[in-house]
Amino acid sequence: MWTFSPIPIVQAPMAGSQDAGLCIAVCEAGGLGSIPAAMLTPATLREEILRVRAGTTAPFNVNFFAHATPEPDPAAEARWRERLSCYYAEHGLEASGSSGPTRAPFDAAMCEIVEALKPEIVSFHFGLPAPDLLARVKAIGAKVFSSATTVEEAKWLDARGVDVIIAQGREAGGHRGLFLSDDLDAQPGLFALLPQVVDAVRVPVIATGGIGDGRGVAAAFALGACAAQIGTAYMRTPQAKTTPVHRAALEQARDDATRLTNLFSGRPARGLLNRLMREVGPTSADLPAFPLAAAAVAPLRAAAEKQGRGDFSPLWSGEAGALAREEDAGEATRRFWREAQAAMRGLAERGA
Amino acid sequence: MWTFSPIPIVQAPMAGSQDAGLCIAVCEAGGLGSIPAAMLTPATLREEILRVRAGTTAPFNVNFFAHATPEPDPAAEARWRERLSCYYAEHGLEASGSSGPTRAPFDAAMCEIVEALKPEIVSFHFGLPAPDLLARVKAIGAKVFSSATTVEEAKWLDARGVDVIIAQGREAGGHRGLFLSDDLDAQPGLFALLPQVVDAVRVPVIATGGIGDGRGVAAAFALGACAAQIGTAYMRTPQAKTTPVHRAALEQARDDATRLTNLFSGRPARGLLNRLMREVGPTSADLPAFPLAAAAVAPLRAAAEKQGRGDFSPLWSGEAGALAREEDAGEATRRFWREAQAAMRGLAERGA
Repeated sequence: MWTFSPIPIVQAPMAGSQDAGLCIAVCEAGGLGSIPAAMLTPATLREEILRVRAGTTAPFNVNFFAHATPEPDPAAEARWRERLSCYYAEHGLEASGSSGPTRAPFDAAMCEIVEALKPEIVSFHFGLPAPDLLARVKAIGAKVFSSATTVEEAKWLDARGVDVIIAQGREAGGHRGLFLSDDLDAQPGLFALLPQVVDAVRVPVIATGGIGDGRGVAAAFALGACAAQIGTAYMRTPQAKTTPVHRAALEQARDDATRLTNLFSGRPARGLLNRLMREVGPTSADLPAFPLAAAAVAPLRAAAEKQGRGDFSPLWSGEAGALAREEDAGEATRRFWREAQAAMRGLAERGA
Repeated sequence: MWTFSPIPIVQAPMAGSQDAGLCIAVCEAGGLGSIPAAMLTPATLREEILRVRAGTTAPFNVNFFAHATPEPDPAAEARWRERLSCYYAEHGLEASGSSGPTRAPFDAAMCEIVEALKPEIVSFHFGLPAPDLLARVKAIGAKVFSSATTVEEAKWLDARGVDVIIAQGREAGGHRGLFLSDDLDAQPGLFALLPQVVDAVRVPVIATGGIGDGRGVAAAFALGACAAQIGTAYMRTPQAKTTPVHRAALEQARDDATRLTNLFSGRPARGLLNRLMREVGPTSADLPAFPLAAAAVAPLRAAAEKQGRGDFSPLWSGEAGALAREEDAGEATRRFWREAQAAMRGLAERGA
C-alpha cells in the first residue's frame, strides 16, 4: 500500500530546523525524506532539491505552505511591537520595523522549480494552492499529499484529488495544518482523528502527531494508517539544523510542557513553553496575520539566543518530544522501523 | 499480563449514564465491567454491587471519585445562578436554591460497603483517597486502579502503590482525572501520553481516551498498554442509561464537536457542544467548586430535556463518539476484541 519508500516512515518537513542533509539521510536509510520550502526562495529551493538529487537516488517530498499572503498591516504590527516593547528595552533593542523570518506560500515561481526538477512528492500545509497551480503539479506526475486536522478537512482534500492525506493529531509539533476552521478546541487527538479520517476518505492516510518511536508507528498502522510521519524525534539528530537552545530545550522536554501558540508567526503551532509564551500567551487574538507576526519577535529571539536563552524562540515540539534522542538520522529511521516491526510481531501473539 | 478478565477491555465507569446492567453485560461477555459510585449513596452502592454479584460471577470494578468535598459557597452559587437567570426566565423557572446531582468522594461509609462486599477492583478518579482509606481497600485484597493525565500524575500514583495506572488521553469523554494541575492545556493526547507513562512507571498501564473500536484497542497494545478502557462506545447500547437527548446527540457526533467544559459540575469534562457551552463557555473561571456547579444547571437541564432538547445537558463524549453504535453491550465487547485481534493479525504480516 505504501510505495514511496522501503520504510513507511515520512520525515516531517520542518521549516527553519532542517535542510537537504536531513532529507538525504532519511532517504538513504529507507524512509521518505522531506524538504521544507516555506522559508526558501525559488532559488534556494532549487539548490536544496539539487543537493538532494546529488545525495540520493530515492524519491523525496517537497513541502509548501498554501496560505494566502496577507496584506501588510502596519497598525497590527505596531501594536505587536508595542506589546513587546518592554522586552526590546530589556535587551537594548530598537523597536523598529525589523524584518523577521518570512514564510511564502506556493506560487507560480515555486511551481516552475517543481516543474523543472520534478520531485516525486509535493505536499501542502494549510490546505491546497489554487486549482491551476495544483493541476500543474499533478501534470508533472508528482503525488500530492496534504494535511487534515479534522474529518471535515480530510473530506475536503479527498474531494479535491489529493493522493494521500496526512491526518495531523493535536499532539503534533510546529504549525497546525488547520485551514477550514481556526477553532483550536475543535482539534482531535490522533487516537480519535486517525480512524475517523480513514473511514471518511478514499485515499491512503499518513498518521502524524505525537509519534516518537516505533511503538507509535505500529499504533498508527493498527488505526489504519499507511505510514507514519515523524518530526520532533528527528530534531536532535546531527543532520537537523535545530539551534543549540532548541536542542537543550528538547533534552528537558516533558509530556505536559508544550502549548499551542500563535505568538511566533500569527498561526497556531505547538512548542515547548518558554518565557514569551508564559508572559504574553500562549496565544493572542491581537497579532498581525500569519506570517507577519514573526518579524517583531525576531530581534528578541536573536538577542536571547546569543545569551544562550530560548526565551523568545519558537521551540517547536510535539507532545512526545521527550522521546527524541541524540542519534544519527539514518539510524533513527532504521530504529523506528525496527521497533515498529518488533511491536507488530509482539501483537501478533495477542491476536492469535 | 492482564489477569482481570478474559478480554483485556475495561468498560469505563460512567456516573449518571449507567448502572449494574451495563457492568454485568460487559463482564458476561468477557470484559471488565465497572460500577460508577460517584453519584450513589452507600445504600444504593450496596444494592448495585449485589445486583452485579447476582448477575455475574466475574470480577468487576467499582469506581470512586477522590476529590475533596468543598465548603458550601453561597456567594459563588448565587453568582452562577445570576449568570443563568436569563435561561431560568426563558423556561419559566425560579432561580431558587435547587439542589442538583451531587458527586460524593470515597469516604468511610463507602469504604465499609467495599469491605463488606469485596469488589475485586476498586478504581479512583482525581487521585487517591486518604492513605488510611486506601490501606483499608488494599487490606481486603482489592486491586487499586487510578487515572493519570500526565506523566507526573502517573509517577505520583506509582509511588503510592496503585496496582494499575489508567493513562487518560486528552481525547477522553466525561470528567478528566487531572489532580496535580488544573491546566487543561498541559494535557497530552493518548498517542504521546501512553508510551511516556509506560516508560515512567513500574506497574501495568490501561489506555483510555478516544478508543472507539478494536483498532484503538490494538493501537493501545502497540503503545505498551495492558488493556484498553472504553466509555463512549458503550453509551448507545441498550444496557446504558444514556438519556434520549444524549443518545440523539451521539448519533450525530463529529470528531470536531466536543469541548472540555466545567459548566456542568465545576471540573473539566469532555462533552458534545451544546447551547450552554456555546453561550456561556465552554469553560468559566467563576463557578462554584466541583461538584457544586451542577445544582444551578439541573433545573434547566430537566426543563429542556422535557422538550427533547439537550441544550443544558452534559452530553459527555470522547472525541471518537462517532464510532459508537446502537448495539448490545456484550456484542460490542466481543466486537471490539474481534476487531482488535484482526488488526493485530494484520500487523503481524507487516512486522515480518
